Amino acid sequence: MKALVFNGPGRSSWQDARDPAVQDPADAIVRVEATTICGTDLHILAGDVPDVPPGTVLGHEAVGRVVETGSAVRAVRPGDRVLVSCISGCGRCRFCREAAYGQCTEGGGWILGHRIDGTQAEFVRVPFADMSLYSLPESVPARDAVLLSDIFPTAYEVGVLKGRVRPGDTVVVVGAGPIGLAAIAGAQLFSPSRIVAVDPAAIRLEAAKALGADAIATPAEAEPLVADLTGGLGADVVIEAVGLPESFEQCTRMVRPGGRLANVGVHGGPATLHLEDAWFRNLTITTGLVDASSTATLLQMLTDRRLPVAALVTHTFELGQMEEAYDIFARAADTGALKVILGEPQHDELTLRTAA
Amino acid sequence: MKALVFNGPGRSSWQDARDPAVQDPADAIVRVEATTICGTDLHILAGDVPDVPPGTVLGHEAVGRVVETGSAVRAVRPGDRVLVSCISGCGRCRFCREAAYGQCTEGGGWILGHRIDGTQAEFVRVPFADMSLYSLPESVPARDAVLLSDIFPTAYEVGVLKGRVRPGDTVVVVGAGPIGLAAIAGAQLFSPSRIVAVDPAAIRLEAAKALGADAIATPAEAEPLVADLTGGLGADVVIEAVGLPESFEQCTRMVRPGGRLANVGVHGGPATLHLEDAWFRNLTITTGLVDASSTATLLQMLTDRRLPVAALVTHTFELGQMEEAYDIFARAADTGALKVILGEPQHDELTLRTAA
Repeated sequence: MKALVFNGPGRSSWQDARDPAVQDPADAIVRVEATTICGTDLHILAGDVPDVPPGTVLGHEAVGRVVETGSAVRAVRPGDRVLVSCISGCGRCRFCREAAYGQCTEGGGWILGHRIDGTQAEFVRVPFADMSLYSLPESVPARDAVLLSDIFPTAYEVGVLKGRVRPGDTVVVVGAGPIGLAAIAGAQLFSPSRIVAVDPAAIRLEAAKALGADAIATPAEAEPLVADLTGGLGADVVIEAVGLPESFEQCTRMVRPGGRLANVGVHGGPATLHLEDAWFRNLTITTGLVDASSTATLLQMLTDRRLPVAALVTHTFELGQMEEAYDIFARAADTGALKVILGEPQHDELTLRTAA
Repeated sequence: MKALVFNGPGRSSWQDARDPAVQDPADAIVRVEATTICGTDLHILAGDVPDVPPGTVLGHEAVGRVVETGSAVRAVRPGDRVLVSCISGCGRCRFCREAAYGQCTEGGGWILGHRIDGTQAEFVRVPFADMSLYSLPESVPARDAVLLSDIFPTAYEVGVLKGRVRPGDTVVVVGAGPIGLAAIAGAQLFSPSRIVAVDPAAIRLEAAKALGADAIATPAEAEPLVADLTGGLGADVVIEAVGLPESFEQCTRMVRPGGRLANVGVHGGPATLHLEDAWFRNLTITTGLVDASSTATLLQMLTDRRLPVAALVTHTFELGQMEEAYDIFARAADTGALKVILGEPQHDELTLRTAA
């Protein structure tokens, strides 16, 4: 088959790769209908995730069709159309039993395109298939559903739920890339009074407004705006969706006493935590990898057309155009790319859409 | 009257001070029966809390008797024996209405010995008396009850409750000073499987064992011990009760994925937060000033002899021996002082006692 193979930092190509095969009775083999590229894939290519061995097929998001299952698989059968979650779980370890699948100690967690070959390929082997695949109605477009492999559950669980967004809250989302935009969509489900989106890029702030942000600001404008909106107190919830120390530190300055800072960003280095200002302020700071424990719920909402996924897709490509898609995605500041979907006819750039 | 007056960094004395008087209808004047010295008072003397003006009477912990009340006070009357909480609350602002009295925006919060004259005196004016004083049965010794002005509610609310200690947990308490010891006592109320106390001082580790710690360690021994006790996973809850960056950073290394780090320590500077290790570990980090929302509950438990307060008192002094008491407390590493109580006959050093 063909696949996008990581050949060491800075080197990858759409090339021949070994066909996956069932290795364990709990495995399923899925033919990829649609996949996408995550900011994390760019981190891997940059060499920031050193535990990914060269030779690994990248990608942890997909919609596809089951072509083969191991003898222990019960929940799906060959021919089923499925969503592939970015998180696999053994279902039996202490973490899985608490629905903390992302922390699975028995070979699950984030493994696709990380510890084993991933989804940017014609076929993918999915371990723990019963826990990692979700049946998908034929009526749901792959380009929509594939956003539920990772970014919508991540933004919802690690940003919105850990941030405990509540009715009446002022919510600040720092970073209006795909994760931040999905957090804006997710936060609205809890009826906050206002959502402030922060990003240096005007095109992303426009997308944030289209998704329901009530106010927008560049990072330089953000702190005075939030102070002004909250009578100087700060925001109830601040969601970090960038992954840089300066962004995290700005979040700590914008949260009110008793507020919550939910870090979603993938960080490559440390930040300074000003405990001399924070120790008495009753802050709650959370971090987290997605558990995908919300995936079934979000999938039902998508089927019911309650999730504005389409607004995040800016470009589509055929599966074989993987290298072009990477180029467009990596140059997002120039190309305006948010999510690029592989497995569709090519569209260089789509008009931003909001869900019906 | 006589009082311990802060005369600028490094300078304080037991000297004549102005008698307090009712200034607001919600005030009460309390004659101090017993008070104590907090690590925070040493921070003030060291110049670390620059918003304390020279001339301020220090102290935020006391038991005493009401001698005068303003016209709006309803809950106590002259002659009543009371516990003075370290936290006052207006009871009406948005924070007080959520029981976040420590964050009161209308003149409450931690004010005694901070923004106004405090309790290390013969008399003290207590604003918001209805919210800040608790009736105290004559049968409860002042030396026990005074530990409920600050350290027991602080350790319980900011350490144990924010850390969400649960049955079966492994709890690590870093710092076995008075706050850490009170956290050890408080954590036991939730039936953890084990409590590990960490401190460089052998005498404090002995006190931790007397209070119920299952294992003890110096900071150098702590990380391998916790790893060994938890199969390499880390502790469910880590409580920081020191207030130094290196201590906070060690706490982040000892907490398991999905665990909670509750910071209780008073910090004077920033710490490094290794987000590159933390972002995917589902950590919850909390900070906080005590709200004293648990004081009534703790007082009931004290009356019922369910709280081992006595084990924390190492030295007693008469009120006029304030300067000697400060000296003993400031040299805790040499003197073995934990809590020093003023308002009792002098005892240079008490044998550690555990509650009946």
